[in-house]
Amino acid sequence: MSKIKVAIIGCGSIANAAHIKSYLANPNAEIMYFCDLIQERADQAVINSGCGKAITDYHIALNDPEIEAVSICTPNHVHAAISIECLRAGKHVLCEKPAARTYAEALEMQKVQHETGLVLNIGVVNRFNTGVNLIKKMIANGELGELYHVYVSFRSQRSIPGLGGAFTTKAIAGGGALIDWGVHFLDIVMYCSGDPIPKTVSGQTYSKLGLDIPNYSYLNMWAGPPNYSGTYDVDDFVTAMIRTKGPTITLNGAWAQNIGVDEMYIDFLGDKAGIRLQYGNDFKVYGAKDGILLETSPSFKSVDMFQNEIDSFLDCIRTGEKLPSHIDTVILSSRIIQGIYDSSELEREIAL
Amino acid sequence: MSKIKVAIIGCGSIANAAHIKSYLANPNAEIMYFCDLIQERADQAVINSGCGKAITDYHIALNDPEIEAVSICTPNHVHAAISIECLRAGKHVLCEKPAARTYAEALEMQKVQHETGLVLNIGVVNRFNTGVNLIKKMIANGELGELYHVYVSFRSQRSIPGLGGAFTTKAIAGGGALIDWGVHFLDIVMYCSGDPIPKTVSGQTYSKLGLDIPNYSYLNMWAGPPNYSGTYDVDDFVTAMIRTKGPTITLNGAWAQNIGVDEMYIDFLGDKAGIRLQYGNDFKVYGAKDGILLETSPSFKSVDMFQNEIDSFLDCIRTGEKLPSHIDTVILSSRIIQGIYDSSELEREIAL
Amino acid sequence: MSKIKVAIIGCGSIANAAHIKSYLANPNAEIMYFCDLIQERADQAVINSGCGKAITDYHIALNDPEIEAVSICTPNHVHAAISIECLRAGKHVLCEKPAARTYAEALEMQKVQHETGLVLNIGVVNRFNTGVNLIKKMIANGELGELYHVYVSFRSQRSIPGLGGAFTTKAIAGGGALIDWGVHFLDIVMYCSGDPIPKTVSGQTYSKLGLDIPNYSYLNMWAGPPNYSGTYDVDDFVTAMIRTKGPTITLNGAWAQNIGVDEMYIDFLGDKAGIRLQYGNDFKVYGAKDGILLETSPSFKSVDMFQNEIDSFLDCIRTGEKLPSHIDTVILSSRIIQGIYDSSELEREIAL
Amino acid sequence: MSKIKVAIIGCGSIANAAHIKSYLANPNAEIMYFCDLIQERADQAVINSGCGKAITDYHIALNDPEIEAVSICTPNHVHAAISIECLRAGKHVLCEKPAARTYAEALEMQKVQHETGLVLNIGVVNRFNTGVNLIKKMIANGELGELYHVYVSFRSQRSIPGLGGAFTTKAIAGGGALIDWGVHFLDIVMYCSGDPIPKTVSGQTYSKLGLDIPNYSYLNMWAGPPNYSGTYDVDDFVTAMIRTKGPTITLNGAWAQNIGVDEMYIDFLGDKAGIRLQYGNDFKVYGAKDGILLETSPSFKSVDMFQNEIDSFLDCIRTGEKLPSHIDTVILSSRIIQGIYDSSELEREIAL
Repeated sequence: MSKIKVAIIGCGSIANAAHIKSYLANPNAEIMYFCDLIQERADQAVINSGCGKAITDYHIALNDPEIEAVSICTPNHVHAAISIECLRAGKHVLCEKPAARTYAEALEMQKVQHETGLVLNIGVVNRFNTGVNLIKKMIANGELGELYHVYVSFRSQRSIPGLGGAFTTKAIAGGGALIDWGVHFLDIVMYCSGDPIPKTVSGQTYSKLGLDIPNYSYLNMWAGPPNYSGTYDVDDFVTAMIRTKGPTITLNGAWAQNIGVDEMYIDFLGDKAGIRLQYGNDFKVYGAKDGILLETSPSFKSVDMFQNEIDSFLDCIRTGEKLPSHIDTVILSSRIIQGIYDSSELEREIAL
Repeated sequence: MSKIKVAIIGCGSIANAAHIKSYLANPNAEIMYFCDLIQERADQAVINSGCGKAITDYHIALNDPEIEAVSICTPNHVHAAISIECLRAGKHVLCEKPAARTYAEALEMQKVQHETGLVLNIGVVNRFNTGVNLIKKMIANGELGELYHVYVSFRSQRSIPGLGGAFTTKAIAGGGALIDWGVHFLDIVMYCSGDPIPKTVSGQTYSKLGLDIPNYSYLNMWAGPPNYSGTYDVDDFVTAMIRTKGPTITLNGAWAQNIGVDEMYIDFLGDKAGIRLQYGNDFKVYGAKDGILLETSPSFKSVDMFQNEIDSFLDCIRTGEKLPSHIDTVILSSRIIQGIYDSSELEREIAL
Repeated sequence: MSKIKVAIIGCGSIANAAHIKSYLANPNAEIMYFCDLIQERADQAVINSGCGKAITDYHIALNDPEIEAVSICTPNHVHAAISIECLRAGKHVLCEKPAARTYAEALEMQKVQHETGLVLNIGVVNRFNTGVNLIKKMIANGELGELYHVYVSFRSQRSIPGLGGAFTTKAIAGGGALIDWGVHFLDIVMYCSGDPIPKTVSGQTYSKLGLDIPNYSYLNMWAGPPNYSGTYDVDDFVTAMIRTKGPTITLNGAWAQNIGVDEMYIDFLGDKAGIRLQYGNDFKVYGAKDGILLETSPSFKSVDMFQNEIDSFLDCIRTGEKLPSHIDTVILSSRIIQGIYDSSELEREIAL
Repeated sequence: MSKIKVAIIGCGSIANAAHIKSYLANPNAEIMYFCDLIQERADQAVINSGCGKAITDYHIALNDPEIEAVSICTPNHVHAAISIECLRAGKHVLCEKPAARTYAEALEMQKVQHETGLVLNIGVVNRFNTGVNLIKKMIANGELGELYHVYVSFRSQRSIPGLGGAFTTKAIAGGGALIDWGVHFLDIVMYCSGDPIPKTVSGQTYSKLGLDIPNYSYLNMWAGPPNYSGTYDVDDFVTAMIRTKGPTITLNGAWAQNIGVDEMYIDFLGDKAGIRLQYGNDFKVYGAKDGILLETSPSFKSVDMFQNEIDSFLDCIRTGEKLPSHIDTVILSSRIIQGIYDSSELEREIAL
């Protein structure tokens, strides 16, 4: 079987930290193009990988009939457009999260996927995490009884990424803490809870701590350093409440806050048992029986979620199998996120 | 100056643990009546206090012209009726929290207070806590900058009080975790934040873990033991989101949950600084300046909040001064709590 | 501007862990010589750095007119002699701490620095630490009120370095725990306290736990493994009391002790506030006001102190600016250390 | 055998908390007099004890031939005078610690004890503590090897007793933190170390945090509340270094300090093993063998030290046995404390 020829579009941090090394580690794939608007980044990726060709125009890859698959690792504002162009060009697509800046864009992507029948997976990488899958199974098996509430906390004291850059410019990123972090957390909630249909969404977002860029105090900055003359018009705090046909979901999220603790977890509350999942980490199961309260800490081998994600993407290109990260499965959380942003603007709950 | 003659109506746990001993410790008060429907309780209070007379009908006290002040420590369902009767009988009233089962009842109490001009204080005892008052002052002074969000957590793994009894019977208590605990937490929030006018309320309450009374697992039970043939029709979990003219407020509360941590705190998020208050305990202030993140832990003498509450009640009878626990100041949180219960029933947000 | 040409004299652990990589990271410096008596060490440094020439006789570097600056990373016994030789040869010098084995040697170094006017900095690297500088500023600003006492603890259960080697041989190292660790702690104390003039010194040193080299029990050994036939004639415990024109200073230090806790901190006691600095780590400020005790924990970006030290050294070669690590600024702590050793021998306090 | 008739002179906190209840619990003693200058205190002691007679002039007890033994629980300034008067009146004496305000006074007491041959014990109550005695035995048995250093820490953030009262008035108490707390710690050190002869003493005391009585911030106050118009002229911080024929001893002590930790312990450093004793609590033994570091935590029944002290006092009146709390055994620590105060005034070490 010949190798699947791949193009990487966007050679920034997520491409380097996750996609490229996973393709390189998979014997069935070969990266042929590294594309980035910044020539040096593309060149550096070629040097680091020891293969492929550096390009600054992704159409070169789209026009190459050898290319079967594309990883889209660009800023959010071109996710939809490039994904659609790739699909129309006959390429299978793995697009980084969030699917798009808006629900409308995501719907457009889904539509084209349905028309072309090609793979369109989104980088909701937690769906390839062992712990997350164990929780999904436990809930499906009824081990928690009725799941009536999920509380989501993704709060950090100081974690605004690349302040003043693409991450904090709404026109590029679509949003801040909610779309960048919240998308992962909501994705886990929906995935584990069996995709309960949302009924109402109420949310409020705030843009506070990054506004005064030169005076933003922080210890470390991912995708930094700050661009002092850049833009900051996205949310650094979000609170929301979602009613679904299943559990209610409430969340508090902060890229930055004046509370000195980082609380990154999801609580699944069932009437028989409950689970607290530490994001990206382990989880605990809490139950009770005959007057005894039980706390169970499962241990399991950690896996490389990104490797799993890439391996699965490559597999499903061959097999046609629909993956858990298929665009159809993330359209619901995209809708909720849109709802939170809309509700925040209207300052009232909206019914979906 | 002659002593203020006092009657205690209801000689259960809150009367014994707080009211009675505080009156005894105040040199300007004298307890003349201990009233309880259960004769033994009233008798025991007389024996323990070494003063007063045991009665089972509070009208005896109301008809005694010597009595100036009354502490109402009954279950919630008679708070409004007895308070009103006492005021009409010309007595000053300190009524335990919550003011009443419903907002309508609370409004009625307020109306009669306004008509009679007598004291009607509610047992929102945290308003006499040193730490709470320090926080109120800091927020008023602008030390937090703009206060944009408050998150309230009153979640315990197992703390349903008196399962099957008055606390868990809606007709008596008016509700569960929200009205019993939430009233304290919301009161602190409103008090410290300067009583911001609520605009929308959305909430959902659940009655789950206490339903199967004989199989409820727990370690300790306040106001216990369980009454296996009793009633359990109140909320043991509540989630809510409140928009105000000031900060948004979100809360999660649990008398019982299958998550094995007790998280009882309030986060005040400001754009200059933030505070996490551990309920009934100390607090930390988080700020930032010139790239440095600061965490400050004040320590202060602990005070007997109940003693302060009783002392202040007695003082304001003499001085006519309006206390921070006056019925007028708690009517807003009563309205919010009612809103949460209403919203939960309607399964949608309500505008106030 | 051409690069400053540098020679490294002594290619042991401190050269590799700190000096060499900092020069390599500075665009204005170029290492031309790596000198070590052990040829392999010099060769390895060349290979690791990808530049320079390996030599075993440092006079080659001294005779090279291109060389402007020298880092001296040898054992202590040749610090003074080589520093002086370098200065006389017209080179700027950064000499590792301690300046010398004895106060007399340090004075000689200072004298030659004054004569030549060239740079002679000592590796008191904590003066380039953010936290240390914050504390210095707070004390200077009077935020602690009157600083009346400083207590210094540098006590470890088991940390004798290179037992039996250069570190534990008095003729080479000049001393043990006091000169190797104490020099850093005293330097921070003097630097932060504004160099108060010492009046009396009393100390006692002990050489106990390393005496029986083969039977010394330990978990890890820096600069190890032990040389079973080597020498151990230095202090592994020291206690001292210093009166100054400012605060009294007391210290307990242990390279090794039969107490199972590592306590590495400095307490600055002022009458308005106090500070506990955890060595190489963060610090807490303790104050009090209006009956409230305040504990403040600043968080700040950690810096690479060694990089700062080297960068500053290179800068001051160009600018002539006197750095906080100038020989003049460490002569006082050198005098105190000498005083402790002398007092220990005499078994009585000495006046300075 | 008839009961030993006892008089209590001074009915303040130490009498009530320790002496009186211990005599009452001993079947061989009977308290006949409770003496206090404040009549109410004496009366209250009679009421609480259900025996004896309240007096305000202790000479009544001294003139009563039935009285064999006296407990002196007065402020420090009359310890010596009353002890001597009691001995001269033929009474056995148990005098609270410190023996006296000064070494001279203590010597005078010792002299009269030697002349009369009666019992004169001092309230160094830790000598009746199980843990302390275990440590003494271990050191005597050589289990620590050579004991070369003892470090003593009695540092509290806020513990000035009775600010403005007898405790903080030098003419009454003789001193502050050193004489009130240090006497206990030094006593344990001397007792456990086998009373090593002191050679030099150097110390410095400070009177800082209590100076501004109205603005002293604290959480709790023993023997409080503050007397705002009282006197504060004693030490709240002390540091000292003592050379002996055995180990060196260094100490830091604080009744109050701007460091937010309470560290109350004694470290005994031996070359074979070491011990950290938490004052009034348990201790740990640290040793090492064959590359393994050992930490041992002995557990033992806690005893009522005060009961032991009183029981032993009564026994030795009958048997004539010399107790470990005999005046002869505390004269050495009295001398050291005097030396610290003298050295502090002279600002130099003194040879003993």
